[in-house]
Parts: sequence; structure tokens; C-alpha cells
Amino acid sequence: MKAATVVDGQVVVTDKPDPIPQRGEVLVRVRAAGLNAADLLQRRGFYPAPPGAPPDIPGLEIAGDVVALGEDATRFAVGDRVMALLGGGGQAELAVVHERVAIPVPEALDWPAAGGLPETFTTAHDALFTQCGLTMGERVLIHGAAGGVGTAAVQLAAAAGARVTATVRNAALHDAVRDLGAGDVVAPDAFAPLGPFDVILELVGGPNMAANLGALATGGRISVIGIGAGASTEINLLQLMGARGSIHGSTLRARPLEEKAMAARRVEAHVLPLVAAGRLRVPVANTFALDDVGAAYERFAAGAKFGKVVLLT
Amino acid sequence: MKAATVVDGQVVVTDKPDPIPQRGEVLVRVRAAGLNAADLLQRRGFYPAPPGAPPDIPGLEIAGDVVALGEDATRFAVGDRVMALLGGGGQAELAVVHERVAIPVPEALDWPAAGGLPETFTTAHDALFTQCGLTMGERVLIHGAAGGVGTAAVQLAAAAGARVTATVRNAALHDAVRDLGAGDVVAPDAFAPLGPFDVILELVGGPNMAANLGALATGGRISVIGIGAGASTEINLLQLMGARGSIHGSTLRARPLEEKAMAARRVEAHVLPLVAAGRLRVPVANTFALDDVGAAYERFAAGAKFGKVVLLT
Repeated sequence: MKAATVVDGQVVVTDKPDPIPQRGEVLVRVRAAGLNAADLLQRRGFYPAPPGAPPDIPGLEIAGDVVALGEDATRFAVGDRVMALLGGGGQAELAVVHERVAIPVPEALDWPAAGGLPETFTTAHDALFTQCGLTMGERVLIHGAAGGVGTAAVQLAAAAGARVTATVRNAALHDAVRDLGAGDVVAPDAFAPLGPFDVILELVGGPNMAANLGALATGGRISVIGIGAGASTEINLLQLMGARGSIHGSTLRARPLEEKAMAARRVEAHVLPLVAAGRLRVPVANTFALDDVGAAYERFAAGAKFGKVVLLT
Repeated sequence: MKAATVVDGQVVVTDKPDPIPQRGEVLVRVRAAGLNAADLLQRRGFYPAPPGAPPDIPGLEIAGDVVALGEDATRFAVGDRVMALLGGGGQAELAVVHERVAIPVPEALDWPAAGGLPETFTTAHDALFTQCGLTMGERVLIHGAAGGVGTAAVQLAAAAGARVTATVRNAALHDAVRDLGAGDVVAPDAFAPLGPFDVILELVGGPNMAANLGALATGGRISVIGIGAGASTEINLLQLMGARGSIHGSTLRARPLEEKAMAARRVEAHVLPLVAAGRLRVPVANTFALDDVGAAYERFAAGAKFGKVVLLT
């Protein structure tokens, strides 16, 4: 099969052996595979794939057709459309995934949207609801709201009845984020007067943390799931105590099978019905053919995009 | 009544009007009132009392006899022994407390122990269980374990089936903390090799945070409830994400009535039965008469004590 491959700090297309589905796994003919920030880190030699994932083929999310079943795999039939979160190896013509981690693709989704859904919506749902317990009526602040996870988070929070404030660096994208359900969309340094916030989703990193703590409501929760702007931060613990607040950090990639499967069940139960009903969508900024994977990575790295960059494989 | 009173940065005994119980409140003839770190802050003019609490009489916890009932107060009768968490005003001969925040004193407890229980056991229980969800079999690290909250936390964690590691600065107190149920008791800089820990109770402050994060197990939770050694700390968010960890801050004093009442119900349900059975105790380092309140504060500030400093009023 053809596969995106990290070679000397670049991502190129090479020929790789077809993967073979093992017990409980399905083989997927990948149709679309979203790019994520972790792919850029892997390209630079950081953030190695977890055990069991191909070490040199990036790709944390796929959508495609089931083309073969491993032993005891019973959840899907050959021909079913599935999407899934992977530990790696998704940016290729074929990928294997455990059937407990795969979820069906609703008819409403085309391939690019389906290929850009699993990582972003699972990450956003996990951070907002599983980690932070966001509920109806609460005020949520979403940083970096025009990106893949950000656009998912704005829609999920609005759909759950929360009041959404979003920060977006690129002013040209403010209206698009407002259309997703954000009540206020402001520049990254302008959110403080709009607080306090019950939940803050931090997709940018350390530099925001002092202002986040200052804008945290009593009982507020901060979820840190992106640190592109820096990992180190100075915080005032008295401020955290005074707010009776909490700071949560998380990643999906390193989680064991059972936790990824649980996250998939939650997305199936709580997100897919709204996707199927057309109430949630996956904004796709650009698509690229697998052969143009280098250009796809450059586009992703350039930022200032609305939604996902997706490879069509 | 006689009451400890903050005057010009000192705590002295003055005459104050007797407080009058309002609707739902009981008037308590205070027999014992524990000292807490917050009292030292209040003596220095920081950490003012919340609305509704006497502004110049310190004291966050009491035990005593009910001597009068406000309108509609039905939970206790005159003569009942009660203990309670207060927003302030406890270090006096009389104090009023809402009946929903008061809890009965088990027969097993004498006055000094009862007067030192509410703040410490409520704080420790709230941090370990309500905030951090500590469960049987987990590994918990308790900093500052020889103090009031620390001795409560070691016992509560051990009673719940967790495995306890404690740090104690004063080596002379290590055996006493071990006797409370800690499997390991070490100096404050020696805990890292004993990790990782599922729950870390931070009673000392900012300087421990980097090492705490380094010793945090996957899914680990840190509760910060004391910052005597400093509030500011630099943390690495990537480490928090990698551990999929969380940092919780909390205080009890500023909470509204309903939250204090809920905390009191939890202590009643989960802590009192073990106190009544003799499985939990309140170590009391020193007692002082109310007239010696200045000496009590000096003793508390000197540290290196095992358990509580309690005023007998």
C-alpha cells in the first residue's frame, strides 16, 4: 500500500506492506485521514507513536470502508463505513483498527468530514464533558476556536446548552466561528472582560494560563489539551484555591484500548445522533491527495484555517 | 462574653456582646476551638472573614454545648454536644452556627479532640474524596502530614484502603505519623522515588509542585489546600497532559451555607462512624485556656507539632 511516511524530518509517500487485521480488528480501506498537531510533532521526531502503532506512518484518525475482518471481529461487516481514532498509521491506503474503537459513519457525512471527525470531536467531547463536566447554562471559553478541535468544541458546547465565548487570532474567521454557535468571538487577548467562565478549553498553551485563572468562575475547570504556544507556565495557587478551581491535562493518543473504546462509545451515544441530524458539522478547510501529503502538512503548519486539513487517500 | 479578638496584628481577649441565634441557628457554649493556618493570616490582616461571620473574632471550628435555639431550629436540643465549621468567630465563649452545618459529637471524643475535628477532617475528606475521588488501593502522597489536616488525611486515606506515603519535616514526628497508618514517612525532599502517586495532597505550597507533577501517576490528581511555603509555582503543562492529571485548588471558608452543609453531611456519614468506633482520632499537640490565646497562636506559628493546637474556652 501507499503510506505517508516520516523520513528525515519530512513526510513523503512510500510503499509499505499491507497491514493484517488481528483478533478483534478490522482492515479499513482509508478514504480520508485528518491531520492533527501531533502529526507535526511526529514529523519533527517528537511524540513517537505508542506501542502497537506503526512507528513511521503518521495519522491519528481515519474514515473508510471495512474491507476485511480479523478473527472474532463481529461489530462491522465488509463494506461498512467506519471512522476511528488511531495511535498512528492512519495516513495510508489501509489501516487496521480494533472494532471496539471504530464507530459507524452517519449517512450525512461525506468522506472528508468523516476523516476529520474522530480526533477532534473525541478530544473536544472528552475535555468538555468527561473531564470538565460542562452542563447546560454554564459559560465556556474556547481558545483557538477556529481549528479542528476548536470548531468541534464550540458546536458541542452550544448544542449542550452552554454559553460559548471563543478566541480566534484571525479576525477573518470570527464570523464563521460565530455561525457555529459562539455567542462572542474575540481576539486572544480580549476575553477577560467577558468572564468569568465555568469551563475553559485551552488549545493554545502556557501563555494564556495566568489570564485563564483570573477569568475562572467559582468552581471553574480548565482543560489543557494543546500547548503549541508553550508548555511552561507560572500559576498562582492561591488564585486556584480562591476559585475552588481545577486544571486538567489530557491527551488521547497514549490511552490504552479500553479507554479509547469508552471514548468511542461516548462519541457514538452523545455526538453521532447530532451529526446524523445535521446539527453538528465538520468544517474542512482543505483536502489534499495522499500524493500531495507534503503540501498538506505545510498547509496545516501555516495555520489561520477554519476547520480541518484532510488527506484523501 | 469573652472572645479572642484581632487588635493591631495581635490576638487578645476582649469582651464582646453575646451573639443571638437567628432562624435555623443554634447558640453554642464553646468548650474547645481549634487553631488553623487561616487564623494566622487573619491575625496579620489578610484573609478577612466572609460576610455574616464576626470580622474580628477568629476561629473556624468549635465544639460545645447547645444552650439556645433560634426560630425553627429543630436538629438539636439544648444540652446536645455539637461541633461545627464556622466562617469565623469560634474562639469565644459563645458562637452561633446554622444547625445544618453542625454535627453531633460522638461520645468517644473529649472536648479538645472535638474542637480540633471539624476544619481538619472536613478539609481532608473534601480534598481526598470529594475533589480527588480517592479509592481503595490507590497510592496517596500527603505533604505536611504531622499537622492538623495532615494527621486527619493520613488516617482517612488509610481507613479507605489507600496506600499512604507521608512527608514530614520534623524527623522526631515520623513514628507518630506512621502510627496513624502511613506506610512510608519521609523528609519533604525524599518522596519522588516512592511514587508514582494517584492522589497528592499539597499542604505546603508552590515549591513542591514541580516534584509533585513528576511523581504523578497516569490519571493522578493533586489537591492544593495549603500554600504556606508560597503560592506561585511554575508548572509544565505537557507533564500534566502526559499524566492525564489534574490540579485542584480549594478552601472551605468562603463556601456558601449549602456547600458547608453538604460537607457536614458527608463528614457525618463517612467520618463520624469511624470516630465513634475509635478508628479515627484527633491528635492534640497542645491546649491553651482562652486567656492564653496569645501563647496559643505563638505555639501554632512555631510549627513542628503533631496534630492540633486547641483553645479551651
